[in-house]
Amino acid sequence: MPKDIKLNFSLAEYAARLDKTRAAMTQKNIDCLIVVDPSNIAWLSGYDGWSFYTHQCLIVQHAAEPIWWGRGIDAAGAQRTVYLDSDNIIGYPDHYVQSDERHPMDHLSRLLREMKLDQGSIGLEMENYYFTAAAFRALQTRLPAAKLVDATALVNWQRIVKSEQELEYMRSAARIVEAMHAHIYDIIEPGMVKSDLAAEIFRTGIAGKDEHWGDYPAIMPMLPTGMDATAPHLTWDNSVLQAGDITFFEIAGCHKRYHCPLSRTISLGPPPQKYLDAEKAVLDAMHAGLDNAKPGKTCEDVAIAFFECLEKHGFKKDNRTGYSIGLSYPPDWGERTISLRRGDKTELRPNMTFHFMPALWLDDGGLEITESVVVTENGYERLASVEQRLLVKN
Amino acid sequence: MPKDIKLNFSLAEYAARLDKTRAAMTQKNIDCLIVVDPSNIAWLSGYDGWSFYTHQCLIVQHAAEPIWWGRGIDAAGAQRTVYLDSDNIIGYPDHYVQSDERHPMDHLSRLLREMKLDQGSIGLEMENYYFTAAAFRALQTRLPAAKLVDATALVNWQRIVKSEQELEYMRSAARIVEAMHAHIYDIIEPGMVKSDLAAEIFRTGIAGKDEHWGDYPAIMPMLPTGMDATAPHLTWDNSVLQAGDITFFEIAGCHKRYHCPLSRTISLGPPPQKYLDAEKAVLDAMHAGLDNAKPGKTCEDVAIAFFECLEKHGFKKDNRTGYSIGLSYPPDWGERTISLRRGDKTELRPNMTFHFMPALWLDDGGLEITESVVVTENGYERLASVEQRLLVKN
Repeated sequence: MPKDIKLNFSLAEYAARLDKTRAAMTQKNIDCLIVVDPSNIAWLSGYDGWSFYTHQCLIVQHAAEPIWWGRGIDAAGAQRTVYLDSDNIIGYPDHYVQSDERHPMDHLSRLLREMKLDQGSIGLEMENYYFTAAAFRALQTRLPAAKLVDATALVNWQRIVKSEQELEYMRSAARIVEAMHAHIYDIIEPGMVKSDLAAEIFRTGIAGKDEHWGDYPAIMPMLPTGMDATAPHLTWDNSVLQAGDITFFEIAGCHKRYHCPLSRTISLGPPPQKYLDAEKAVLDAMHAGLDNAKPGKTCEDVAIAFFECLEKHGFKKDNRTGYSIGLSYPPDWGERTISLRRGDKTELRPNMTFHFMPALWLDDGGLEITESVVVTENGYERLASVEQRLLVKN
Repeated sequence: MPKDIKLNFSLAEYAARLDKTRAAMTQKNIDCLIVVDPSNIAWLSGYDGWSFYTHQCLIVQHAAEPIWWGRGIDAAGAQRTVYLDSDNIIGYPDHYVQSDERHPMDHLSRLLREMKLDQGSIGLEMENYYFTAAAFRALQTRLPAAKLVDATALVNWQRIVKSEQELEYMRSAARIVEAMHAHIYDIIEPGMVKSDLAAEIFRTGIAGKDEHWGDYPAIMPMLPTGMDATAPHLTWDNSVLQAGDITFFEIAGCHKRYHCPLSRTISLGPPPQKYLDAEKAVLDAMHAGLDNAKPGKTCEDVAIAFFECLEKHGFKKDNRTGYSIGLSYPPDWGERTISLRRGDKTELRPNMTFHFMPALWLDDGGLEITESVVVTENGYERLASVEQRLLVKN
């Protein structure tokens, strides 16, 4: 390991993560795990770089140190960020990149054969943005002796209970998202161009707050107004805010790749009664849900309490109302493990973290008032402190 | 189509794109194309939203209007952004999202069977971030009668020659990246915290320049200093700039999802001779390459001229020196078609656009001086105008 690299966690913490991962591999009879999810690679090795647009992975075995494998020019980035020995960083030649003639997985297959790993079972993250159908087919073809096993989310599940250091980074992200919302409320007004508002959101989010410097979020800010806010995932353009506009801000603070998402909604002037009714429904239902956010309860318990209360208020929501959060890379700041919805019987444990996301998308606009929380010994704690209501600016 | 949606292109332009795509489908005997690349979906339909973290696609047939298919809550975003009839926007229920029990492709398969599209050949973008191995396996299982054909980059290749409207958006992006580099040079100085510098890069990039408002880039800014700049893809942290530091800035302006990437390098104080030598090598070699950037020449011609000149200067670069650019979504602002490297025999045509990327990553730092260009009738034109040298700030 080069002397001057800055790891975000102690070597002991990385070792503990590896132990947990290997135990999960044992349970699934996996000899070798090919980790492609950039969040999982970072969590296990420290690797951090915008290189996931080309194929890369971490090769995890039971009895040897993990191997970082990726594009040749990115091996230098691995040398700067991972705790692994230099010998365990392997780059492939550039003619494999975005080529019609050869696939990077051909190179990886040869490596696995040389290491005699092609005779056992190999775990693959089948459902991951960065493990393409073509990558799978290349491995199938080139590793005929291997038993390919689906290991989707195997590592993600090891990440759901956060360490104290991880929580500290998420609290830094919380300070950042508080500053972002405070700044939005300060400057928003009729006549403002939305791209200028977005620019200020970015500036605050990246400059951060005090010593809590900002990293890029895994999802770009979404700030749709009016009819555009009937949809959850539109970003911004250069339209001009008008008196009476209602805009929601779905944003996250991010510190060292750890996220604290938090949404608020601002009405420029008094909101219509429908939105005040929706506000009351969302807040009542969120609290009904969060009253169940404690060890021993399940994700489903939280969700059912939320949905039942929401329906009593006469509102319907037909999608999940939250998900696990933590370390992430684009395109998703969720951990892709637990969801707050019926049928998810995962038991809550202290130091789990999730984004409680009771958004309502109505027929003429949207309302988002959300919280990121950490489960404690007896309940939950809000990560960020931003006024919990439909904000009105006159 | 709702009356108040703002399309970025004329209906005639979308129709022409569809025609080109269908012709390419005919050539490959594809009856139905499943387009998952968010850039391709946007190019064909106008769809724009940060929803690609769940499965979505555009179903393209020969004799019927395309169908947007995606997560139920995102159908509202499609209603706001695509030119298609409302009936051609189909959402799937939320219990398919990130579920262990069912895959969204099960839903898509049922739809394709109902439409009798499962009896013919179906084109799939096998090598795409957003087409996972699990998605492919689900389709294989559920569509046993279909002939699944690899259609990777089929749509991307239709995008390489830009329309006048597309070039206009790229020129807007060029105005933005010029403003970004000018602002960086204005404010950079020893003592500056890099996250604060990154915050200003974002602010300038999103606020844009005059009427050219900024969209989020498909790659986040990279601004590594010193040893971190031996690697191409590191982003930033809160380290403090020092006199003598050399930092490269690999950034892009983005307007309506069209990119103009441009990198420059700034030395805080006089750079060592090695970097002056590298500067001369890079600029000479880039011009040698660009002298070949004209219709009738190939990508390989440009690359060979570049690499031969670079080697004469005593420098080596073992990766491609550019790629096609245009409309893009994370994680890559490249179009994933042509690369400027040996072996790429694609002929250059007017209105092709590429990022000429002669970056050198040395043993103690990096140098990036790049250009985004458009091929003209007799040569090329730089999209942005930023001083073409190793910038020094004393």
